[in-house]
Amino acid sequence: MVHRTPVLTSEYLNNLTGAALYFKCENFQKMGAFKMRGALNAIQCLDEDQKRKGVVTHSSGNFGQAVALAAKNLGIKAFIVMPENAPKVKVAAVEHYGGIVIMCESTISAREKTAQQIINTEGATFLHPSNDLNVILGNATATVEFLQEHPDLNVILSPVGGGGLLAGTSLAAHYFGNHCSTMGAEPQEVNDAFRSLKSGVIENNETTATVADGLRTQLGDQNFPIIKELVDRIICVEEEEIVAAMQLIWERMKIVVEASSAVALAAVLKEKEMFKNKKVGILISGGNVDLQNLPF
Amino acid sequence: MVHRTPVLTSEYLNNLTGAALYFKCENFQKMGAFKMRGALNAIQCLDEDQKRKGVVTHSSGNFGQAVALAAKNLGIKAFIVMPENAPKVKVAAVEHYGGIVIMCESTISAREKTAQQIINTEGATFLHPSNDLNVILGNATATVEFLQEHPDLNVILSPVGGGGLLAGTSLAAHYFGNHCSTMGAEPQEVNDAFRSLKSGVIENNETTATVADGLRTQLGDQNFPIIKELVDRIICVEEEEIVAAMQLIWERMKIVVEASSAVALAAVLKEKEMFKNKKVGILISGGNVDLQNLPF
Repeated sequence: MVHRTPVLTSEYLNNLTGAALYFKCENFQKMGAFKMRGALNAIQCLDEDQKRKGVVTHSSGNFGQAVALAAKNLGIKAFIVMPENAPKVKVAAVEHYGGIVIMCESTISAREKTAQQIINTEGATFLHPSNDLNVILGNATATVEFLQEHPDLNVILSPVGGGGLLAGTSLAAHYFGNHCSTMGAEPQEVNDAFRSLKSGVIENNETTATVADGLRTQLGDQNFPIIKELVDRIICVEEEEIVAAMQLIWERMKIVVEASSAVALAAVLKEKEMFKNKKVGILISGGNVDLQNLPF
Repeated sequence: MVHRTPVLTSEYLNNLTGAALYFKCENFQKMGAFKMRGALNAIQCLDEDQKRKGVVTHSSGNFGQAVALAAKNLGIKAFIVMPENAPKVKVAAVEHYGGIVIMCESTISAREKTAQQIINTEGATFLHPSNDLNVILGNATATVEFLQEHPDLNVILSPVGGGGLLAGTSLAAHYFGNHCSTMGAEPQEVNDAFRSLKSGVIENNETTATVADGLRTQLGDQNFPIIKELVDRIICVEEEEIVAAMQLIWERMKIVVEASSAVALAAVLKEKEMFKNKKVGILISGGNVDLQNLPF
């Protein structure tokens, strides 16, 4: 129910970095992002009674689409709470995948309240986009595939927003890798994960001012303990470094990737010495971009 | 010396067209376009004396880069005549690939005169981007690979500009396909190939007014006889159909393709009934686009 996504390489980017880079292309995943893996696994792990009553999430981004499509493919109902100012194209995508869209005000409290109402009236199970162990384990399958094809990767980099992909990546690298370490890459502007690793407790972001719109979310209490134990370090990058890396990927690799996906390459370009002569895996998280609104 | 490029599919585009579409992704080819195949083959076919003296072409597009890179990889000199108003990024790309750039005025006669001077002084061999049998045969290798992986394609569509790719495609489909027909896809605005097939003689374009900048060139006397014999038909598409198909490929397949590459999908979308329930191969010719200047 998910694609086994291809791993691409680029001679140009290898020469530029001095490393051997391998890109796991989840932009080619169903609905265009790794989120499909976590949503599908979380729904598959429900019991029969839960499946009958359906699932609910609130999301204006990839996870809403992923839950809608995964639920449709498994034959169960999905309620997707979306803010009334969500782009029409995203609402249409959720409806195209068979999701039942419930509009609410564009505040976190309105979203949570609306989702709670559906839990109360429908008995639906709430799915969190990143702070849920079954979502994390679903995300981990991208790295399991990655290591099956390239068992000798020295390090895998994943972007970090809510922490669901990074936690899953680190679990898979730990259990299936051959001394393969995991690093996170995070926009400096929303570096709650970087600061949380330093302080040892979950830190908050003051702003959401990053072009990497998939990474504006906060770490959670399910994924942070995993990240704390298994992630070697988090590299922070500036906004212009993210945009430059995104443009490099588009121009040189000829693939459409989200800004969030470019953060990991930006980190390798920033810390070249650290990765020199290493086999480096990079998780390309997704490719859902608004072509009318590109950052370059 | 060339990549064996991947073949991609899209469930969404299959549903949209009612056909089973297979995309041969030459946008992932070295230097980003199928032109590498023709340039390489033409240079490899030179004799030792010719190789010693080098090659020359005039091009502001993909073929100049292809000749420069192919020559570099074969250890011979390449003189690339470029108009003085060529975009800096294209000049830089040719130089990056080791080509010797010679600037001239931006007219066809100045280009030809400058190339002739190099032929006279250096003894270099002139390579034409499309009207050269060894270039055509090199281009054909894309379709040979395509048919090795998908031997039961019913039809292969290729964009047509100078005719070098379409001629090569039709030769490979004829000799290696299993009753596989070849069709061309051409912008209505520069439909010299469509009109030439109708009249039986090479027709000229009045304008070059198409977004598909790789297809502004004219058919030649080397490729037209092949096309006349082996190509079933040419489908013409409007400018807005090309842009819409290009956007579909970017958004749904998550790959960066040139406008010229979208012409074949535009043709399938325009003539859906013709392709319904067929296995249809589409040659994605290249992915070298100016990200600052997208048509959508």
